[in-house]
Amino acid sequence: MVSSGISSGNSLEDSSGTVAVVGAGVIGLSCAWRAASAGFAVRVYDPAPGSGASHVAAGMLAPVTEALPTEPAVFALGAAALRRWPDFAAELTAAGADPRLRTDGTLVVALDPGDRAELDRIAEQLSRMGRPVDTLSGRQARRVEPSLGPQVCRALSVPDEASVDNRALLAALLVACRGAGVEFHAHRCLRPPSADVVILAAGAHSGALHPRLHRMIRPVKGEILRLRGRPGALAPPSRTIRAIVGGRQCYLVPRDGGRLVLGATRSEVGFDTDVTAGAVRELLTDAERVLPAVAEYAVEEAVAGLRPASPDNLPVIGELEPGVLAATGHYRHGILLAPLTAEVVLALLRGEDGPGEAGPATPARLPPVSGDASHDSHRHSRVARSAP
Amino acid sequence: MVSSGISSGNSLEDSSGTVAVVGAGVIGLSCAWRAASAGFAVRVYDPAPGSGASHVAAGMLAPVTEALPTEPAVFALGAAALRRWPDFAAELTAAGADPRLRTDGTLVVALDPGDRAELDRIAEQLSRMGRPVDTLSGRQARRVEPSLGPQVCRALSVPDEASVDNRALLAALLVACRGAGVEFHAHRCLRPPSADVVILAAGAHSGALHPRLHRMIRPVKGEILRLRGRPGALAPPSRTIRAIVGGRQCYLVPRDGGRLVLGATRSEVGFDTDVTAGAVRELLTDAERVLPAVAEYAVEEAVAGLRPASPDNLPVIGELEPGVLAATGHYRHGILLAPLTAEVVLALLRGEDGPGEAGPATPARLPPVSGDASHDSHRHSRVARSAP
Repeated sequence: MVSSGISSGNSLEDSSGTVAVVGAGVIGLSCAWRAASAGFAVRVYDPAPGSGASHVAAGMLAPVTEALPTEPAVFALGAAALRRWPDFAAELTAAGADPRLRTDGTLVVALDPGDRAELDRIAEQLSRMGRPVDTLSGRQARRVEPSLGPQVCRALSVPDEASVDNRALLAALLVACRGAGVEFHAHRCLRPPSADVVILAAGAHSGALHPRLHRMIRPVKGEILRLRGRPGALAPPSRTIRAIVGGRQCYLVPRDGGRLVLGATRSEVGFDTDVTAGAVRELLTDAERVLPAVAEYAVEEAVAGLRPASPDNLPVIGELEPGVLAATGHYRHGILLAPLTAEVVLALLRGEDGPGEAGPATPARLPPVSGDASHDSHRHSRVARSAP
Repeated sequence: MVSSGISSGNSLEDSSGTVAVVGAGVIGLSCAWRAASAGFAVRVYDPAPGSGASHVAAGMLAPVTEALPTEPAVFALGAAALRRWPDFAAELTAAGADPRLRTDGTLVVALDPGDRAELDRIAEQLSRMGRPVDTLSGRQARRVEPSLGPQVCRALSVPDEASVDNRALLAALLVACRGAGVEFHAHRCLRPPSADVVILAAGAHSGALHPRLHRMIRPVKGEILRLRGRPGALAPPSRTIRAIVGGRQCYLVPRDGGRLVLGATRSEVGFDTDVTAGAVRELLTDAERVLPAVAEYAVEEAVAGLRPASPDNLPVIGELEPGVLAATGHYRHGILLAPLTAEVVLALLRGEDGPGEAGPATPARLPPVSGDASHDSHRHSRVARSAP
């Protein structure tokens, strides 16, 4: 259960207050769209809307396979979010543009004997979680996805997962926001702007905006490659492929137009968006073992984003202080969790209870800010709520 | 010996005629600069000056190691061009910008026993050509270039080779051209423009501009990766490294600012500038074996260009018909051969003999155009020389 609404006197039950959203990634835009559609006057602050980690994401809506091997709280939150995706996508499409939801599920594949053993452990674990999956032989997997290579020796079919085209989603959210009357301000906020309620949704940069987020939200680099199938090469798979290749995990997520997004579960902490040669080499080598046709695909882009990670890998959604809400820390799950996050934020703006499933995301779990918890916390002045 | 000047009546000995150059790559710009500096009125036609194959080049000035294993005519031409580079670079620097000539030589390295045997064959061959080289052990090579990896087991030091920064070179040529009064016209020529003399320097697109070049000049894709060293990783080598890795060849060419250009000697014919995932993976894998620090470098760019190849891998420099000169077909050697090519072209414009070393590049070696040599040659109308 999340805290029942924001602090007394700070909810905006009459929908007449002003809401400032810091950050126009998938989280900020989703919150802004929902709030503006509900009648709030919403301003969004971002020097380059839609250009951060959301722009780099693979767009998997994959709570089951993302939370592996053992993050039950992340799984539960993701599952709650996934249930909201079909309506969210439909409403977004109606509001202006289609985020290209694909509901074909995920195929998790193994290559080496060690990978196969890992896959069997995952199947067993999912079964214990009450989510039995189909186990396929390599041959059966290739019957489902003919572009899989001969080294694939086992697969799990996880039918109820999905994906969206993250860039189509961002474009759709921008259209929907403008349609709902959201105002965009193209500048970087060094501190929360003044408004009746401020929503901090600045992703990996959120830590600088509030003392309670400082040192709690860390940037974790994620790199992807965007490929394009070429004439003569086998077409990309029709569903998301997650692969365990020599103990490493990578994923291959199809897009319209014969495109394919590759990513890996590497993680490097720091404000650095370099795509390293070693990461590209490893990702391409692994992806080619999974899907040999990849060798013939064109490399369109290699790009890195900074995902906002919290200490427990759960997002931080809720009130930080009167008039200031957090909607950040979504780590690898920003796209998946966007509909649920926007729902929680809208409930809080209205002074209502948010959905109970979002309870674990409460800021109440963060340690209190003390004078010596961070020797440079004096740089972050506490934000005074402006009078309405 | 090249033909003695261009056809009687078409030389421009009084430097008062107009010269149109089609193509603003390194060849077109070098010719334009030299011609304008000599007093000709020069116009250059290119929709995007400095953006073609020259922009993608590695910038090696490496006639010895490029011509391996056996292309003596290409080697001789390259050696003649290399001798002209120091003056060319100095004059260009004086005319406005520095093309960053590096004269540290080339180190050719081998990794596997098979590669080592290949290296020994090359050393023997160079010795027979009267170009003895120093053979180094792996340890000696690492003393010279500490970033070389432990798998390097033998090396040849070829001291008298060089490199330039191809993009600095293009920028310098553009400055020098403008300084010399060259006029730029930003459009694509579908046929030679009218002028007293036209110079066809359109690289891989030259074949469409004249029947004698049609089917003689083919596009051959070349892919490069541009990397940037990062703090904490070993710095790039100080000289060009050419490597034989499991029978494949690749090269690593240092640039200022800790940057490194990687390329390979793959070749694919066709008007396609896709950079394939397989090529990137192979190039990075090989480069990492040569220079392990590469894994930590940032990938800044993966890009392909179309090199103009002739049937015998020699360029085509000289008169195609009265008033029309070719300066194309330089294949992998456009940067290296630019000073020599410009010298030949300027001599021809003046009605003088070009340098004898450029003789093998004469268009006279191309087959004559006959009615049935090319069934679609009727598309290319012969160019009438405009009256001066």
